[in-house]
Amino acid sequence: MFVVMLKDFQKAMRKKKVKSVLLLNSSLHKMDPNFAYFSGMWMEFGFVVVPVEGKPVLIVPLFEYERAKKESLIRTVALEKGKLDLLLGRLLRGRNVGVNMSHISINEIKWLRKLVTGKQYIDVSKELIVARSVKSSKEIAIVKKSCGICQRILVKCFKQFRRFKTELDVAKFLENETFAAGCELAFPPIVASGSNAGMAHHMPQNVQLKKGFCVIDFGVKYQGYCSDITRTVFIGKPTEKEKGVYNDVLDVQKTCVKMCVGGQKCSVVYDYALEMLGEWFTHGLGHGIGVEIHEWPNLKPKGKEKFEDGMIFTVEPGVYTKKYGIRIEDDVLIENGKPKVLTPISKAFRIVK
Amino acid sequence: MFVVMLKDFQKAMRKKKVKSVLLLNSSLHKMDPNFAYFSGMWMEFGFVVVPVEGKPVLIVPLFEYERAKKESLIRTVALEKGKLDLLLGRLLRGRNVGVNMSHISINEIKWLRKLVTGKQYIDVSKELIVARSVKSSKEIAIVKKSCGICQRILVKCFKQFRRFKTELDVAKFLENETFAAGCELAFPPIVASGSNAGMAHHMPQNVQLKKGFCVIDFGVKYQGYCSDITRTVFIGKPTEKEKGVYNDVLDVQKTCVKMCVGGQKCSVVYDYALEMLGEWFTHGLGHGIGVEIHEWPNLKPKGKEKFEDGMIFTVEPGVYTKKYGIRIEDDVLIENGKPKVLTPISKAFRIVK
Repeated sequence: MFVVMLKDFQKAMRKKKVKSVLLLNSSLHKMDPNFAYFSGMWMEFGFVVVPVEGKPVLIVPLFEYERAKKESLIRTVALEKGKLDLLLGRLLRGRNVGVNMSHISINEIKWLRKLVTGKQYIDVSKELIVARSVKSSKEIAIVKKSCGICQRILVKCFKQFRRFKTELDVAKFLENETFAAGCELAFPPIVASGSNAGMAHHMPQNVQLKKGFCVIDFGVKYQGYCSDITRTVFIGKPTEKEKGVYNDVLDVQKTCVKMCVGGQKCSVVYDYALEMLGEWFTHGLGHGIGVEIHEWPNLKPKGKEKFEDGMIFTVEPGVYTKKYGIRIEDDVLIENGKPKVLTPISKAFRIVK
Repeated sequence: MFVVMLKDFQKAMRKKKVKSVLLLNSSLHKMDPNFAYFSGMWMEFGFVVVPVEGKPVLIVPLFEYERAKKESLIRTVALEKGKLDLLLGRLLRGRNVGVNMSHISINEIKWLRKLVTGKQYIDVSKELIVARSVKSSKEIAIVKKSCGICQRILVKCFKQFRRFKTELDVAKFLENETFAAGCELAFPPIVASGSNAGMAHHMPQNVQLKKGFCVIDFGVKYQGYCSDITRTVFIGKPTEKEKGVYNDVLDVQKTCVKMCVGGQKCSVVYDYALEMLGEWFTHGLGHGIGVEIHEWPNLKPKGKEKFEDGMIFTVEPGVYTKKYGIRIEDDVLIENGKPKVLTPISKAFRIVK
């Protein structure tokens, strides 16, 4: 991986008078996405040091060394037992050390203060988020490929939808195709039919696909970068009213995408969707995608973030009632100030079964 | 789920003069296992309040409410926008609020201090770890089932090993069988053949299975509880020396299991394994399993933890060189002071292909 805009981030660090940044992972359930961003590695335990001059270094336990050396794209150092203090003392230059205070726990920072003394630990969480929100041309190329794979799998899925019997059948198909394409899942796929579609984060179940709307939210991770697409298809014979509601959501989605232009506040687009869809719009309107499935910008109410060139994010208005749900989601890139849909597969009302 | 020993934990809280405990999840990459332990839910965003009297409450965003109400086993409350302060103010009784300072980030605690004022936030991370390290009879029954499913899948895997061509073929088989059994993976399976076996955390690759030792480390999650088994099998014709090394590791593993008796220090067993296996033993000797794949006790050097009735943990000595790797891992329960192997499938030297 390692396709980040390192120099921009280092510049931001110099502004904060930070000489090096320390990132850490401490368990399978507590992995800093910024660790993956700089090292290309999702791993359970380890450290990344990003200096303001030169290149980042990855520190891993001895038993992970061979794998990490092979898989990571930055210099990798094996941690000798009991020598972490010396190693960090050597790698962390200057007094001011940047850390991600939105990730590091109270106990970890206490432990760190004892381990490496004489340092001032400074929060750089916001700078990390900002650095990741604007993608480099290499990152954009990878996300485009990720979106391409995701689209191909979805198209294949809809074509043979008739043979699926349960929500789980659909989810398994998506998973298998993902692995066959050499990718990972960006998140567990959502396949929600009938009244289940009314639950925004419904997990696919081993139950018959029900008549009505079926929401499919699916994304792959290609070379570490996520894609994220939702299409809502129809099972059975729709009424005119059902078609109408679907097309209303689709119109809102298309207008929202058009509103995403450089300099525009993200919250303005959210406000528009809320105004059009009303109380049944219980979900956020969208989120940045990258090494993490939810990044900046956040298309939420009252936020101050503005769209910028190089941002990639989802636009996914939806309505959820107790009886049904509809969501339509594309991935959008801002290029020369204009929104470019990276996931152009059809959004037209579609009966699949 | 909700099979925890709530009363014991509440007693420990009363000792610390804590009136309620607040647990929180804030992203896919930062989920507190204690949140899952008390609620039965792995979810991206939400809160769990555990009072010292009465039962825990789960707080989820509106769009997660229907799913959470269905899937969680504790009372579930939907979060109304902008009303978190009121809700937490009402649910968090007393001045002293327990939090998991090994999980909650610096920025989260700052935010919490502003949101709910007049509280003293107290670290209960250790008490949470201790509570989870000793399993209730209901939890033990679930882990046993988890181990049973894991064993059945492994036996099936070895029986048809000849038809697998690549490491990925084996991993996919294990994954598919896991899903077919209605389980999740406890972690991405490790399938490492030939010199890859020398990397303790090698990820299976789309490469031909190589001759020599093949380490397979695999676990399922059944009703939220993990199992974790490693077997090392042989591909091709072994030399006497290879058989000998394998049987040496096996002897050490069996002796280690026998040493795990109530009251014994975990570190003593680690020290024994290190003495026997020497510098090629670069891995920990074992770890507790439960809702999380790595829990207490930790069978590591210098630790003070002792084995107790109700603890379930792995015993997994191994040797890793540049040329090959061998690891043998069982899950062990302490029952009436004695070790009981929950994963008794054969560990005898086995040629699979």
